[in-house]
Amino acid sequence: MAKVNNDAAHDDMSLELSSQQLRELVDQAMQRLSLFLDTLPEQPTSNLDGAEQIARSVSEPLPESGVLAEEVLDQLFDTLIPASLNPTSPGYMAYVPGGGLPQAAVADLISGITNRFVGIWHVAPPVAQIEATVIRWFCEMVGYPGGAGGFLTSGGSLANWSAIVTARRCRLPDNFLNGVLYTSDQAHHSVTKAAILAGFPTQNVRSISVDARFRIRIDALANQIARDRHDGLQPFCLIAHAGTVNTGAVDELAALAELAEQHHLWMHVDAAYGGFFLLTERGRERLQGVERADSITIDPHKGLFLPYGTGGLLVRDRNDLRHAHCMRGDYIPPAPDDPDFVDFSDISPELSRGFRGLRIWLPFKLHGASPFRSNLNEKLDLASWATSELRKMNEEINDELEIVAEPQLSMLAFRLVRPGLGEDELNRLNGQLLERINSTGRVMLSATRLHNRYVIRVCILSFRTHRPEVATCLHEIRQAISSLSG
Amino acid sequence: MAKVNNDAAHDDMSLELSSQQLRELVDQAMQRLSLFLDTLPEQPTSNLDGAEQIARSVSEPLPESGVLAEEVLDQLFDTLIPASLNPTSPGYMAYVPGGGLPQAAVADLISGITNRFVGIWHVAPPVAQIEATVIRWFCEMVGYPGGAGGFLTSGGSLANWSAIVTARRCRLPDNFLNGVLYTSDQAHHSVTKAAILAGFPTQNVRSISVDARFRIRIDALANQIARDRHDGLQPFCLIAHAGTVNTGAVDELAALAELAEQHHLWMHVDAAYGGFFLLTERGRERLQGVERADSITIDPHKGLFLPYGTGGLLVRDRNDLRHAHCMRGDYIPPAPDDPDFVDFSDISPELSRGFRGLRIWLPFKLHGASPFRSNLNEKLDLASWATSELRKMNEEINDELEIVAEPQLSMLAFRLVRPGLGEDELNRLNGQLLERINSTGRVMLSATRLHNRYVIRVCILSFRTHRPEVATCLHEIRQAISSLSG
Repeated sequence: MAKVNNDAAHDDMSLELSSQQLRELVDQAMQRLSLFLDTLPEQPTSNLDGAEQIARSVSEPLPESGVLAEEVLDQLFDTLIPASLNPTSPGYMAYVPGGGLPQAAVADLISGITNRFVGIWHVAPPVAQIEATVIRWFCEMVGYPGGAGGFLTSGGSLANWSAIVTARRCRLPDNFLNGVLYTSDQAHHSVTKAAILAGFPTQNVRSISVDARFRIRIDALANQIARDRHDGLQPFCLIAHAGTVNTGAVDELAALAELAEQHHLWMHVDAAYGGFFLLTERGRERLQGVERADSITIDPHKGLFLPYGTGGLLVRDRNDLRHAHCMRGDYIPPAPDDPDFVDFSDISPELSRGFRGLRIWLPFKLHGASPFRSNLNEKLDLASWATSELRKMNEEINDELEIVAEPQLSMLAFRLVRPGLGEDELNRLNGQLLERINSTGRVMLSATRLHNRYVIRVCILSFRTHRPEVATCLHEIRQAISSLSG
Repeated sequence: MAKVNNDAAHDDMSLELSSQQLRELVDQAMQRLSLFLDTLPEQPTSNLDGAEQIARSVSEPLPESGVLAEEVLDQLFDTLIPASLNPTSPGYMAYVPGGGLPQAAVADLISGITNRFVGIWHVAPPVAQIEATVIRWFCEMVGYPGGAGGFLTSGGSLANWSAIVTARRCRLPDNFLNGVLYTSDQAHHSVTKAAILAGFPTQNVRSISVDARFRIRIDALANQIARDRHDGLQPFCLIAHAGTVNTGAVDELAALAELAEQHHLWMHVDAAYGGFFLLTERGRERLQGVERADSITIDPHKGLFLPYGTGGLLVRDRNDLRHAHCMRGDYIPPAPDDPDFVDFSDISPELSRGFRGLRIWLPFKLHGASPFRSNLNEKLDLASWATSELRKMNEEINDELEIVAEPQLSMLAFRLVRPGLGEDELNRLNGQLLERINSTGRVMLSATRLHNRYVIRVCILSFRTHRPEVATCLHEIRQAISSLSG
């Protein structure tokens, strides 16, 4: 015990920083982060040459002693972080970009240092209420009634999983292995994955065909439900999409809600990509009916431009969440009596969890909803504009540029069609086209397959992507096409 | 579309901060965070008076426009954050404290602003490799072989859930509703919750009685397995504990591993509280056998002193994780060929997720493992010391201070026993005792129930808690006892 009392030994083992030492560390980080932000427009959207070797250099045994902060930060900013795709770039329109609001990262700095516990309301009431308030904003945004509720997750996958678990616990409390889930063949793979993790056999997830606009076919869905019921199975859950990952397609939510009601299905809407367009008038029109869903996945790290790490689940009746998740231990303080307050651990799968709400609350407090709304409106405009410009390109080029998916929100898909080529050759051709578009590093697009056709996606969703970047994207597409035809 | 081109409109809607604006925001936050850290020793461990009213003040409609950063930060630091329990306080020995290393919060600032995507290796190889390296360090720490793997979660609850899902998918691939899980009556409630979320009926989770040291009774476990098998059920999973939440009890892991092997059970160890003591020699002795477990939950936001938000699951054979979780979409780049590299989305439930590894990697790079090890050794010493000091108090007091649970790691439990009082009266007496101990706000302890006895827990785990704070805690206990007896 002498050791513990010994000041020298104590100094050796300290992990405690004085506020002065912390400031220095933050200053060192901020120097590099400032440079990072200042040079963003020049940074390539992708920089993977040698990335594998660099990755190997990260592997080392657990170090026994530390190195200077300067050294670690240099390694991080000069070598490790740059060797990757760059979702922070204004030219990044691949996958589903959000950009990563630095304001949210400042919130994380505050959350981490002040380190409050939000799983149990009584432990930090105002802090828990920050997350509850954010959830209320979202519930109002989707048009849910007062009894709605929800919680923030680490992303859309776990939100989809919690939705399916909630549906299962509420609708099929006992043997659920005959339960059948319905979604379209355009579903995000996390939907099937969530169903499997929730305990359903893979074959109980029905992949329903889509119409020309990549929306689930309601007739096909109704037929499948009838067939399954006839076979003695239990249709119980429909997972619709408000913005599919492939093309941004929005299912006909109002009609689906009708069908779900008729067949007593739990209706979940995966709005991970499209949900926050509900902040705009056009979004509200296109997502009409979403408010009739039993549950909705949203993804602030997409449509609210947050850094990766925040999704959310909204449920029309928060009692359903409680029914599915509430189990308590003897070492836990009692739940709040007031219905305005909630123990997140009672309505979600986690007990300990970070102070997640701040990274949404702070940007909204600093800026209000208005610039978020404007940005989302701008992205809708940009996607329409890009589509009409792409269509115009057909006047200049020999091949045909086919718009495979018109934007229903801020995403579109196209491919180059050359008369006389078979599907495999077309797929190869478009693979080459994508490679050339991305080759200068000024923009980045990604591809997907739509019923075996290789198509190129443009997803405009970063708060840093404006008209000049989309113009650059169109320029790169034009150049790439002419080099391929040349 | 004119609007998009219009610079004025663009300015209005901008969420983009120049690096100068970001620096100002960080400076404003850091002023308050410095004050927060400088005044930590004087801050009360609990400050809940009026917290409910303050929580109500947070509820407001989504604001359309923003307010000055000064104003929001003042609200946060002066009003909202203080009205709570204070797990950052050096005197906080309630529940399972970690403290919240500010270094990790700086890592979060960096992660958020640079916003890399770690779910798919090919998208950011060195960044994904940071998490993979942290996982490798942990696998080596627990004594796992080269083929082990794992991933970081948001906390222990989801790690326990993923462990059970992995066990279920590997051991009971089809109808698993007859599968039985075994754990002790001291299990964290997240274990039962995880089993239920994973699809098991509540009644299939067996709560086995414990010995005098709160460790699962191996004879009772063996009997129950035999009984269940006789009844046609399928024993398949054992969840042992390396540090229970009630008393820090460590099950006899080597003997349990033997039994699990014999009965073909998947053995999971919930080491959320105790796991990082494996960095110390005493911890390795006490957790002997943990390396034979099929999977292990660890919680860096406990034993590595991180801010809330990081747990982890380690699995002895990473192919089991892949078998349970790998499902891919057409829009996802191919997985890496090299066995040294991993797509976290293939071995875990999430696709998009934050750049979680940095908040562990950076503190280890800055300080090395040595001060973590020293801190953990110090906590073991302090718990032994506190126990012997509590025992000595019996020489001064009229009542008996009963050590209900000796520390097996850095946690102990005690209660006051007054001859002639029944159990209910004793429970009330100890409730009052706890209230008095916590009343000055210099320390904070929490309580639990052990087979209906109300006991007070001391959990020493914050990197800010040293001998003077434990001495203060002993002083507060002594004062509270004498005021109760006076």
